[in-house]
Amino acid sequence: MSDNLPKILDCTIRDGGLVNNWDFSEEFVRNLYEGLNEAGVDYMEIGYKNSPKLLKGADEAGPWRFLNDDFLKKVIPQKLNTKLSALVDIGRVDENDILPRSESMLDLIRVACYARDVDKAIRLVEIFHERGYETTLNIMALSNVMENELTEALEQIKDCPVDVVYIVDSFGSLNNSEIEYFIEKFKKLLPNKKLGIHAHNNMQLAFSNTLLAAEKGVAYLDSSVYGMGRAAGNCNTELLVANLKNPKYKLRPVLDIIERFMVEMRENWEWGYNIPYMITGTLDEHPRTAMALRGSADKDKYVDFYDQLTLPEVSPQAKK
Amino acid sequence: MSDNLPKILDCTIRDGGLVNNWDFSEEFVRNLYEGLNEAGVDYMEIGYKNSPKLLKGADEAGPWRFLNDDFLKKVIPQKLNTKLSALVDIGRVDENDILPRSESMLDLIRVACYARDVDKAIRLVEIFHERGYETTLNIMALSNVMENELTEALEQIKDCPVDVVYIVDSFGSLNNSEIEYFIEKFKKLLPNKKLGIHAHNNMQLAFSNTLLAAEKGVAYLDSSVYGMGRAAGNCNTELLVANLKNPKYKLRPVLDIIERFMVEMRENWEWGYNIPYMITGTLDEHPRTAMALRGSADKDKYVDFYDQLTLPEVSPQAKK
Repeated sequence: MSDNLPKILDCTIRDGGLVNNWDFSEEFVRNLYEGLNEAGVDYMEIGYKNSPKLLKGADEAGPWRFLNDDFLKKVIPQKLNTKLSALVDIGRVDENDILPRSESMLDLIRVACYARDVDKAIRLVEIFHERGYETTLNIMALSNVMENELTEALEQIKDCPVDVVYIVDSFGSLNNSEIEYFIEKFKKLLPNKKLGIHAHNNMQLAFSNTLLAAEKGVAYLDSSVYGMGRAAGNCNTELLVANLKNPKYKLRPVLDIIERFMVEMRENWEWGYNIPYMITGTLDEHPRTAMALRGSADKDKYVDFYDQLTLPEVSPQAKK
Repeated sequence: MSDNLPKILDCTIRDGGLVNNWDFSEEFVRNLYEGLNEAGVDYMEIGYKNSPKLLKGADEAGPWRFLNDDFLKKVIPQKLNTKLSALVDIGRVDENDILPRSESMLDLIRVACYARDVDKAIRLVEIFHERGYETTLNIMALSNVMENELTEALEQIKDCPVDVVYIVDSFGSLNNSEIEYFIEKFKKLLPNKKLGIHAHNNMQLAFSNTLLAAEKGVAYLDSSVYGMGRAAGNCNTELLVANLKNPKYKLRPVLDIIERFMVEMRENWEWGYNIPYMITGTLDEHPRTAMALRGSADKDKYVDFYDQLTLPEVSPQAKK
């Protein structure tokens, strides 16, 4: 029976690292792992497995952006029930960095891609599958993909060895009905695959969309503790463990992590619902303009920001 | 057609006053009224119409707690399209304070009550209806009412002159399925009444529950700007005007109000999702213990707070 219940994948370190440039202490990551394990959380995504050779600014980021197996073994000396996962991006991962699973701390490798890159993503999935890993394929920015392109991508994915295919609401722009629409489409075109959901909270719908997905049979639910994730953040892990109908989930260890580590973290770094992220979510746009605004002196100039995004004449084309 | 579309009732001043003891400037309230009117919001609940004679601590609260018609005429010299509403509580209102509607700034009087007090609420509704007002009856704390008591209450309400009956999620403890359950029950037992919803955001479900209600034909949607309301606050007005399918609603004037007034207000007063409110929501309890915690030096002691509410032995009975 328990195999039919949805699993929680906590991506506090991976998606939260987009907030603080992966400035997480080893102590925090170790405590988070133990806390998530005690809470019954199924997977912890402990970072990216991209290659520093393929990314600019690599030397400024914390180690969680370029996971190294020796380092991981030091931080997490003992694997518990919670499995470990890492995300890779198309074109930023060097497949030679990926050890066979038998020699690695990682259980699951997730490949993030846009629908247009699905062929490249499938190639990576095949390699990781071959090396013994569980795999997922996370299709980003679904709200901006044309229907025929998505259909084609899902038809390609159907025959690849991936275990789970994710519905990713990158812009936090999808409401319940739209999530339901994607679930039905994915179910129809991928009858042989499990589904996952990764929601963002720009319109305060991340938890609600994730609960709906769980009801509709989506098997993998992404979340992060205290909602920590890029811009408006993710579905909150504490809300999932408190509300999913599975006796193994416990809220108390997650509260303990928030109390000991994340209240202070939230004082130093900003994430979660705020007006610029709500605006980009509503307009179905990438949050990058809102993130830039929040980092500027104009961070609370909401009306100007809204005008820039909605009135074309405010931003004329550059002169020659 | 537009009569079939849901209406927004903004209760920033009334429910938000529970955050700051109604410490709103006249300038803010006037600007809010003009902004809501420009945004197309249908009603603005401008406070309570309780009697200071019937409440302790009355002299410390701002004027919005005990609305006086002469004062209202000064603050809002010109009525625009947005109607004005006030809330009264059972046992705290002196019916002699209520002018006939023709002499009053108010259009709508809402009666808040628990299911057990519905007979008293109906008596008040009859008086206000008689004096020419639109009326609503807001049944609070629905998650704590026994089924037979609620059925009986709704059967009594069916034959009274009230225009709208509200589903109130006082503790922010209801999820989408539970809201849907109440909507179906209310529809069945009150086929002749319009319905309303007032949601709290303890589990980040206020907007989602309100959207769902709108889809299911609920006609009156409560919200507050920037979510300002007691404890975890309400469904955000900015999310409703940005997402409801009604061309008259405009987001920009609401952004303007937030930018000019509410960012600073939020720096001085706390409301919205946080962990203690999430805990009381999850446990289906009144937020008063969480509000007390947030006002104490232990405001971030989440684990102790959770233990107190869930482990009976932590709080032994008082000795004689």
